[in-house]
Amino acid sequence: MHEPAVILLSGGLDSATTAAIARDEGFRLVALSVDYGQRHRFELEAAARVAAALGIDDHQSVSVDLSAFGADSALTAEVDVPKDRPADAMASEIPVTYVPARNTVFLALALALAEARGISELFIGVNAVDYSGYPDCRPEYIEAFERMANVATRAAVEGRALYSVNTPLIAMSKAEIVRRGTELGVDYGLTHSCYDPDERGGPCGRCDACRLRRQGFADAGLVDPLTYPE
Amino acid sequence: MHEPAVILLSGGLDSATTAAIARDEGFRLVALSVDYGQRHRFELEAAARVAAALGIDDHQSVSVDLSAFGADSALTAEVDVPKDRPADAMASEIPVTYVPARNTVFLALALALAEARGISELFIGVNAVDYSGYPDCRPEYIEAFERMANVATRAAVEGRALYSVNTPLIAMSKAEIVRRGTELGVDYGLTHSCYDPDERGGPCGRCDACRLRRQGFADAGLVDPLTYPE
Repeated sequence: MHEPAVILLSGGLDSATTAAIARDEGFRLVALSVDYGQRHRFELEAAARVAAALGIDDHQSVSVDLSAFGADSALTAEVDVPKDRPADAMASEIPVTYVPARNTVFLALALALAEARGISELFIGVNAVDYSGYPDCRPEYIEAFERMANVATRAAVEGRALYSVNTPLIAMSKAEIVRRGTELGVDYGLTHSCYDPDERGGPCGRCDACRLRRQGFADAGLVDPLTYPE
Repeated sequence: MHEPAVILLSGGLDSATTAAIARDEGFRLVALSVDYGQRHRFELEAAARVAAALGIDDHQSVSVDLSAFGADSALTAEVDVPKDRPADAMASEIPVTYVPARNTVFLALALALAEARGISELFIGVNAVDYSGYPDCRPEYIEAFERMANVATRAAVEGRALYSVNTPLIAMSKAEIVRRGTELGVDYGLTHSCYDPDERGGPCGRCDACRLRRQGFADAGLVDPLTYPE
């Protein structure tokens, strides 16, 4: 009998690797994808492909339109996605692709699903190394969310659950993530990372997400199965 | 120049009173209503009426379908709403109307809106007296959410915001709430409390919400402007 866990699955490289790690650790996964008003649907299509490839047959999705809040993020609004940023800028600044309170909204929805299903383990593919600019990717944030979850819910208060937010990637470099996922058989050709894809979902190769991904494969000495423009 | 605040506005008696208190304290309010798969739309219509009556012209709403998660709450699923429950049962048990992680989802959305707008004050009409069975109505929950919010967000990490979750009703009885709102001119005829309204939105008079409301008006020596069945 495998213990169940809710995993936030975006269809990106990080969440696909997190799912593979959780499965390898013996968890039975319930995937949750959140449509938060992305400018493109390729991310959600990738999530469905990744779930199918990992044998996750319980894949829930929920829509919540954060773009209605007038956030000025490049991921939800009509703001130009930055291209060709130097690595030091990526590492030190909070990027325009930051979505206000995004992981808090995602984890709150995962917690609701977990409590409704009687599940107490959550997985999220946050990473504090490559995304050092995102406050809600840091260990202290994850710990604060866990503490909150354990006073928030009927299941916790009644002693039926002790919620745990698992972040296996949090201290890994992109190269380590890609290497671990490859060992576990993740097909990265199914994943989607680009913030500014072409009309068929192909990656631009130059946004922060593409650059981190490509550098990760290069550093790991592995070949990215995606095809990039010249 | 009034300081802005985001208030979660359901259209119920508690959130209407919270809004009136916040306005009386000098805040300029941005209201947020969440459509979380309620079985009836009367709550959202009441929220719009209450916002208009309080002069709140910035009223946002967002849909998130928690009922898709298979929660067995009477507020989102086809479960019978309990009627004529004795007061001691209402006070000591977590009711079937409990929605998993609801206030966490609501506050996460309010935090996203607040951060997007550069606002750091949040208001929510939770009450630990009449709703003692709801874990996410207790002060320790609110404090845990505040701590989490202040490590979660770019605005907090960059020192532009210190998030505060204001809960003016948390220690008040229903009678005190009704009395305070009446002093502030709240028109309770615009609010909606019932968990099981008739097809025109009229209250049943017998669910927990109706019973708490009616008892509150009775204890306060005030007349509830709503009309109940015989």
